[in-house]
Amino acid sequence: MRIIVQKFGGTSVANLECMLKVLEKNREILDKGVKLVVVLSAMAGETNRLLAMAKQWSKNPDPWELDALVATGEQVSVALYAMLLKERGIRTRSVLAHQVEILTDCTAGRARILGINAERIMELLKDHDILVVAGFQGCDIRQRITTLGRGGSDTSAVALAAALKAEICEIFTDVDGVYTTDPNICPRARKINRITYDEMLEMASMGAKVLQIRSVEFAKKYQVPVHVRSTFSNEPGTIVTKEEEGMEEALVSSIAYDKDQARVTLMDVNDEPGVAANIFGPISDANIVVDMIVQNPSREGRTDMTFTVPRGDLEPTIAIINRIKKDIGAKAMVHDAQVSKVSIIGVGMRNHSGVAAMAFTALKNEGINILMISTSEIKISILLDEKYTELAVRTLHEAFGLDRPESSIFCEGA
Amino acid sequence: MRIIVQKFGGTSVANLECMLKVLEKNREILDKGVKLVVVLSAMAGETNRLLAMAKQWSKNPDPWELDALVATGEQVSVALYAMLLKERGIRTRSVLAHQVEILTDCTAGRARILGINAERIMELLKDHDILVVAGFQGCDIRQRITTLGRGGSDTSAVALAAALKAEICEIFTDVDGVYTTDPNICPRARKINRITYDEMLEMASMGAKVLQIRSVEFAKKYQVPVHVRSTFSNEPGTIVTKEEEGMEEALVSSIAYDKDQARVTLMDVNDEPGVAANIFGPISDANIVVDMIVQNPSREGRTDMTFTVPRGDLEPTIAIINRIKKDIGAKAMVHDAQVSKVSIIGVGMRNHSGVAAMAFTALKNEGINILMISTSEIKISILLDEKYTELAVRTLHEAFGLDRPESSIFCEGA
Repeated sequence: MRIIVQKFGGTSVANLECMLKVLEKNREILDKGVKLVVVLSAMAGETNRLLAMAKQWSKNPDPWELDALVATGEQVSVALYAMLLKERGIRTRSVLAHQVEILTDCTAGRARILGINAERIMELLKDHDILVVAGFQGCDIRQRITTLGRGGSDTSAVALAAALKAEICEIFTDVDGVYTTDPNICPRARKINRITYDEMLEMASMGAKVLQIRSVEFAKKYQVPVHVRSTFSNEPGTIVTKEEEGMEEALVSSIAYDKDQARVTLMDVNDEPGVAANIFGPISDANIVVDMIVQNPSREGRTDMTFTVPRGDLEPTIAIINRIKKDIGAKAMVHDAQVSKVSIIGVGMRNHSGVAAMAFTALKNEGINILMISTSEIKISILLDEKYTELAVRTLHEAFGLDRPESSIFCEGA
Repeated sequence: MRIIVQKFGGTSVANLECMLKVLEKNREILDKGVKLVVVLSAMAGETNRLLAMAKQWSKNPDPWELDALVATGEQVSVALYAMLLKERGIRTRSVLAHQVEILTDCTAGRARILGINAERIMELLKDHDILVVAGFQGCDIRQRITTLGRGGSDTSAVALAAALKAEICEIFTDVDGVYTTDPNICPRARKINRITYDEMLEMASMGAKVLQIRSVEFAKKYQVPVHVRSTFSNEPGTIVTKEEEGMEEALVSSIAYDKDQARVTLMDVNDEPGVAANIFGPISDANIVVDMIVQNPSREGRTDMTFTVPRGDLEPTIAIINRIKKDIGAKAMVHDAQVSKVSIIGVGMRNHSGVAAMAFTALKNEGINILMISTSEIKISILLDEKYTELAVRTLHEAFGLDRPESSIFCEGA
């Protein structure tokens, strides 16, 4: 049995007219004699409407009840869409998470999928050509409704594709794919034809606007090819896939940026074993995620320690440091909330040297000062004064040839 | 463990303010150390909003998908209300039909409850003081969502009370009880303190505005005392219960009416075995419910047959008769859509003669002509020209002393 999973986001099911476009996408697959699992999000605006109600009912809504509440959004979508299909004579039905045991852990609001009853779904696919599955929701071992966090329908779709060994998981959305950078700040940004799971993961917050990060982790783990594309056009979008030959030519595939950054420097800290744990332990205990960390070489048993946190976490971070600064022997603390991070991403970096040098030169030529650098195998992240963000993105985008059409050796080899 | 079931209809949970009134009703019970099962309907207007959407999506919505759609209404109510309770420190949670196996038959839209996992609910009641259960919904053996028909939350509540052997099932609504007749047409109508299951069932359409008929059948079968009362007052309402001593003094407890009536007379039908089956078989096959039937005594092997159907079914009934009139040998058919039915109801009738005669005399004195009569053990129904409906109701209400306060022998013995 050939199976394809298609997922449609909130803007793709916003109203009857949109759902008729979804039907067109489904028909292309059905006409090939392939069975379809269609995963739907809540209609655009519906989840926010429900969350606003919850806030009215309770200042701090119980997370389990919140899940039971917002899960109705997807239930409405799948019931309406299944009606639409049935009226057109298509063998179909709606499917809720508990009906096919999309089992998650017992975490309200951001549950992780543990398993899916694939046998049950295969059974249903015998009698139906399309199963319309509610995305975003799961159920835990005690039969309670859970949800997978914002963008969780992406993960529902990829998990279903993995469980059913589907040929591909198509994610339909209101953008036409993954771009070399944010087209809003760099008009010459291009749509990427193919990108690896790892690159997509490194794009972090920028990529997350297109796909929930967890869905990419899932896709990578189970090697599910994911096709991100637009509901409102027939053009192919971006294939997220494992690394393949031909892709290696791509040195850099995209430039990401993140303005939600703040920097903290602790000066003249005692450089002794365990000092990093003493600083970052309490910060982590407060659920604050530290991103970049730089420790200067030690001088006379003392060092400077610089790190970044999300901007909204700067105040609590300062409070924590003030509490522990005696223990760590810090002489002073400076902080800056006006910084941003620009990242250069590409699997090709692994086999090519000189990417960092190219980046630094390009930025220098524009007079942009680098505040911090951190590197991984396929990503170079640079912290800058926030005011340079857009300029830096455009400069790097051009420096690595991402402006140019596909044939360049700098482009992803599609 | 002492348990009480309280059910609140759509107008009682219409908004946050209303739900706070529900909380007051709950607290009275909680404060006595009694565990509560609270059954909620969808917020007023919500079910209609969802049905209207369905109609937009499909001219003839699939009944299973319709159930999945409208069941979200109750899910929203219970999640919001549970949030409200939790914020106030009450040990509670929302409960959906499939979570406690409110098992129904496989009939979408008007399913019947087959069983409830009482053990599971008792288990939950150990850790919770209030369980907030979604009314109206059930699930079938295949885990699909079903709904119990309009007013189905009443049946949910009574079924839960029966399964849990609750002390009482309190149905909170926007009226303050069951009345001796419709106060809109008879200002002297009084609230009834106690009424039997059978009387409530005979009130049919008039009673159904207060309680879903099926819930009364359920209550009668499992001997669940039901208290119908107002969310918006502290006055006691009407207790629906089994027949008890003291109640027998009540000759007549209420006057009901139904304007949704049409009459058909077939003249000069062959009076031979099976003729009734030949007429009413095809009508029943068309899902038309025949109410009153009168067959005149046979004259020379021929008879007249008169019956009533809901007014909206008159046209299809005429079409059916025209199709079969040759077979049954009917000479002519007359019909009248301007008729209504007035009923006198009371368990006391069973042991008292003369009720019918009293009724006929009272109507005669007002010059009201009787078109048809049918009687059961505890009900006399009279078909009249529609224009006399209100006058007949008021006349009978007064004739049987229902205008007078409770002490009269004609009143229900409260």
